[in-house]
Amino acid sequence: MKFAFLPSPWEASVADLQAAGHEMVDLEQNPDMLVFRGGPKDFPDTLPESVKVVQIGYAGIEMLLDAGILAKHAARGVRFANAAGIYDDTVAESTLGLLLAVSHRHKAVRREWNQSQLFDETEFLFDNKKLALIGAGGIGKKLIEFLAPFGVEVTAVNRSGREVKGAVQTVAMSDAEAMAQVWANNEYFVLLAPLTPDTKHLVNAEVLAAMPSNAVIVNVGRGGLIDTEALTDALRHGTIAGAGLDVTEPEPLPADHPLWDMDTVVITPHTANIPRFMERRVGALAVKNWEKFASGEQMHTEVDVDAGY
Amino acid sequence: MKFAFLPSPWEASVADLQAAGHEMVDLEQNPDMLVFRGGPKDFPDTLPESVKVVQIGYAGIEMLLDAGILAKHAARGVRFANAAGIYDDTVAESTLGLLLAVSHRHKAVRREWNQSQLFDETEFLFDNKKLALIGAGGIGKKLIEFLAPFGVEVTAVNRSGREVKGAVQTVAMSDAEAMAQVWANNEYFVLLAPLTPDTKHLVNAEVLAAMPSNAVIVNVGRGGLIDTEALTDALRHGTIAGAGLDVTEPEPLPADHPLWDMDTVVITPHTANIPRFMERRVGALAVKNWEKFASGEQMHTEVDVDAGY
Repeated sequence: MKFAFLPSPWEASVADLQAAGHEMVDLEQNPDMLVFRGGPKDFPDTLPESVKVVQIGYAGIEMLLDAGILAKHAARGVRFANAAGIYDDTVAESTLGLLLAVSHRHKAVRREWNQSQLFDETEFLFDNKKLALIGAGGIGKKLIEFLAPFGVEVTAVNRSGREVKGAVQTVAMSDAEAMAQVWANNEYFVLLAPLTPDTKHLVNAEVLAAMPSNAVIVNVGRGGLIDTEALTDALRHGTIAGAGLDVTEPEPLPADHPLWDMDTVVITPHTANIPRFMERRVGALAVKNWEKFASGEQMHTEVDVDAGY
Repeated sequence: MKFAFLPSPWEASVADLQAAGHEMVDLEQNPDMLVFRGGPKDFPDTLPESVKVVQIGYAGIEMLLDAGILAKHAARGVRFANAAGIYDDTVAESTLGLLLAVSHRHKAVRREWNQSQLFDETEFLFDNKKLALIGAGGIGKKLIEFLAPFGVEVTAVNRSGREVKGAVQTVAMSDAEAMAQVWANNEYFVLLAPLTPDTKHLVNAEVLAAMPSNAVIVNVGRGGLIDTEALTDALRHGTIAGAGLDVTEPEPLPADHPLWDMDTVVITPHTANIPRFMERRVGALAVKNWEKFASGEQMHTEVDVDAGY
């Protein structure tokens, strides 16, 4: 098949598509597939009728959905696939790094040799800890694998409440009573959920107050899952013990924001996933998705445009 | 049995011994066992003849050996056990925390949003990495378990060259030719070896020069395993990529030492193991060791005083 790659191609991805026998062309040359890795403004206003599939080079498609781009072309029969799953391992490993950096109090280390402070404050994952995974898709499942040797007891929270392998229990996010137990009975909270009207400020002042005082939150999902002001207050007053934040609201977090100054908070600049890994993998995913499409099946990472994911 | 606990008891350990039916007494009241957690100066000059076993509350017994204390009492038939193994999980987890903090460039994060720097410089353990474990006892075996889900290829280095489970190969430290391959062919080096005349400054300028430029060293063994000046030079000149140091030479590292200023170096103040975990566990170990002794067997962590470990 022929594919176009907009707004500009990733070399590693193109190489994988070409190695599978596909040909890169311009959008005007009637491609079968568009591989797209830009934002809403980069998306072509019109697509040639030849384009049957759009492979998006990332997973968080909220902005394309909000801009009405997917709906518009889906109405014409174009099918969309995103890049969910190809960064499960990067994000899961980054999550573990944040969990350990916060628990082991790396940021509290002082040149003046505060060993006894760290002796008191260091916590270990292997020490009969309980962790709630808020959003338990592919990244969560990979994190469960990484956590298994530590014996961490994982509670999964997802939309459906459908059982997640490796979790001791799975809770549906809509079950308010069960969710109250989740907030109260875990020490670690890993936020991986997509941002929707239902999950906006999921972690607010009330939820923070319900957590135990040794709670640590790691957000590798979306900044808007947490009410930043409430989190800052909770950390300042010792309501909870720490946070690892790869995403924040606002993002970037202003350089003078008090969260930067807290040694209980480890921040990374939205780098839990890394573009060069995506570039290495999107080509292979596009090849597999095209095979599925060509054989009349649902693609591996096909987007349900109506459902919004 | 009756036990004494010197120089002063750890509550949690005493509770475990008492729960197993043993009685705490003073040294003068003819205990069967002495639980000892001090340094050479704290060791009693003479032990009552009733003392058959000394359970030491830590693993690194070099100082007691060097002071001749073990030999003196062993000559009289006293048997010694150390606390090897009861902090395998703390040190292994701390090691993983340092590996991830260095690889994920936590210390390079700037408030001024240096996302693209981290995109370029972040490395992942799962990304087909090779790691050499220098010293592959209990901690190393636990670390191999923690690393297994990442698919890290582990080469073990020990005294004997005897195969270590989970390692793709095991090299004897005395095999100079094989060791040259170890330094050249791994990206991660975890130092867990005891400090002996053979291992003093094992990582020196020559060894650092042999490592690949993306090499990361984590030292959770003894500070003297590394020539600090050579390491500082290697990091300053990019000969290697980073280091995680729980132990240093000298220790504490002076507050004005250049290693503190490098964002490629993550330092913890000798807190890979944590006393409160030892306190929780030494009692249970002493109980198990006494059972072995009482049934005429070798104790779980019996020290070979002649061999020195």
